[in-house]
Amino acid sequence: MNVKITGASLPNIPWQDKPSKALNSPMWRYDRNPIIGRNPAPGVTRIFNSAVLPYKGGYVGVFRGEQTDGVPHIYLGYSDDGLKWEFETQKIPFTDQDGKSFMPRYAYDPRLIEIEGVYYIMWCQDFYGASIGMAKTTDFKTFTRLENPFMPYNRNAVLFPRKIDGTYRLLSRPSDSGHTPFGDIFVSESPDMEFWGRHRHVMSRSSAWWDGVKIGAGAAPIETSEGWLLIYHGVTGTCNGFVYSMGGAILDIDQPSVVKARCRRFLLTPEEDYEERGFVPNVVFPCAALCDADTGRLAVYYGAADSYVGVAFTTVDSVIAFIKEHSELSGEDTEPGTR
Amino acid sequence: MNVKITGASLPNIPWQDKPSKALNSPMWRYDRNPIIGRNPAPGVTRIFNSAVLPYKGGYVGVFRGEQTDGVPHIYLGYSDDGLKWEFETQKIPFTDQDGKSFMPRYAYDPRLIEIEGVYYIMWCQDFYGASIGMAKTTDFKTFTRLENPFMPYNRNAVLFPRKIDGTYRLLSRPSDSGHTPFGDIFVSESPDMEFWGRHRHVMSRSSAWWDGVKIGAGAAPIETSEGWLLIYHGVTGTCNGFVYSMGGAILDIDQPSVVKARCRRFLLTPEEDYEERGFVPNVVFPCAALCDADTGRLAVYYGAADSYVGVAFTTVDSVIAFIKEHSELSGEDTEPGTR
Repeated sequence: MNVKITGASLPNIPWQDKPSKALNSPMWRYDRNPIIGRNPAPGVTRIFNSAVLPYKGGYVGVFRGEQTDGVPHIYLGYSDDGLKWEFETQKIPFTDQDGKSFMPRYAYDPRLIEIEGVYYIMWCQDFYGASIGMAKTTDFKTFTRLENPFMPYNRNAVLFPRKIDGTYRLLSRPSDSGHTPFGDIFVSESPDMEFWGRHRHVMSRSSAWWDGVKIGAGAAPIETSEGWLLIYHGVTGTCNGFVYSMGGAILDIDQPSVVKARCRRFLLTPEEDYEERGFVPNVVFPCAALCDADTGRLAVYYGAADSYVGVAFTTVDSVIAFIKEHSELSGEDTEPGTR
Repeated sequence: MNVKITGASLPNIPWQDKPSKALNSPMWRYDRNPIIGRNPAPGVTRIFNSAVLPYKGGYVGVFRGEQTDGVPHIYLGYSDDGLKWEFETQKIPFTDQDGKSFMPRYAYDPRLIEIEGVYYIMWCQDFYGASIGMAKTTDFKTFTRLENPFMPYNRNAVLFPRKIDGTYRLLSRPSDSGHTPFGDIFVSESPDMEFWGRHRHVMSRSSAWWDGVKIGAGAAPIETSEGWLLIYHGVTGTCNGFVYSMGGAILDIDQPSVVKARCRRFLLTPEEDYEERGFVPNVVFPCAALCDADTGRLAVYYGAADSYVGVAFTTVDSVIAFIKEHSELSGEDTEPGTR
């Protein structure tokens, strides 16, 4: 392995070796996908766009569970191997700082990121318009809401897994009130997770067609000797709606608003039955990536067709080599992002 | 006078007595409107949507000057009486914290607010999408840009003229990338004008038709014994475009996300030639209000038809009485604004 990864060993990472058939990217699917099928829990019709982390030798996750009234909320789940999951039957009981119940009206597309022993959940919710909600937990029993970092309209918030130069960093994608037909990725700083500022533009929607409409951060960035590896989603428009694919970029390690490399080609695009048909056809939507720092193995969790959860594999070495080989950057990508 | 105003004496406030004719609101126009006509400065085709403050016995202002290439920038102006204005021929030369030139690509709808001897300018600009720019000055010679408080898309930022409970408070109106067809007013807090948070929803677009599409803060709130008097703009939609009118509300003095009263009726709506015809017909757009704390006289500066500046008069007593008499509040207006 050539790329050095700053992260933990994860010897029990979900894994399958690369298949022998020719591939158009260095990423391949778990052959038993989807790992989460329809009606996975009582009163929950679909789970997708969900995030997982290692926890106490196994795995914990926050899951977008579409209730049978169509409203999404976040459910906790546990797994021994990261592939077979069991879900709690009640939504995560978010509270305010005083311990009183403080539930979002809806909550979707959660991410889960650990910083210095604290687990942060961030999701999209109604804040008089769609924007970001956040909470923290240390024990997965008490979940304390933090201040909403931004006003509407915003989606796809993803924290970096450590402070950079003394401040927390949060990726997000400003949007509008509907099925937003535009969207770039920004990064913001906070000294305390209460006040946010020093906003910088990171990446624009691109001239490549697959991510030419809008983009959004997916998994927590992975720290490597080449920079932050960012797995994101990109969207193209068709006469019959949006198509969501997975892409990859490398951000400067100290100044993550500067993009060092960005793959012009998608890493994964809807092709399989469970990606092309479902509640929202043609969606591959990454929300988390497990990484074993020893081997460089990467397991990416993605929502499929707003109906299922799938896993895809790659290695940090091969995906970074592919991103660099096919990198194409716009002026807006390489700027510090201040105007 | 019944309402107590916390503010300075301004004996030379522009003023005309109320005309004898019947009015549908307690506000009347200066009979020599518009006070700023077409081609008011070299290379500037129109000035409108601009803000003024008392300064050294006279007045200073920041003016949206539409250049003859159609791009708006901010120009400084001075006046002895607040009615006849002279403009600097060069745009305001904004710099970064190191004193290097840092000009916005465009800048429009400036507001000007003084807090503890520092003058803050805030405007709408390109931050990879329309959002708020800010700068400060103490001498109107050096203008230092501050961090952009928010990511796109946002417009109509207006500071409160003092800290509340130890933090700066900034009103704004989240929007989208175009001629936004929605929009509520929010308020945000900052300890330092660098990081912003504790965002709260203030007021929704209403069930009254005149401000049913979107609303935005206009002048800096005026501190009174009844609460913060907020002059704002409200927008309705027609088959031939938007119509912008002026409205009034009273916000809680300690918790300004809570609306205490809100006038269901507009205070001023386009009726005059210079309001109904111009670059954008049918626009009355308030950006500043001068107030004499001794008499309660109020002079509101507003852009007219994106072509002119007009002035309208009222008194704090009469406008607050009118707002309270015709107040109608929604649930979203009276909530603390947290979700």
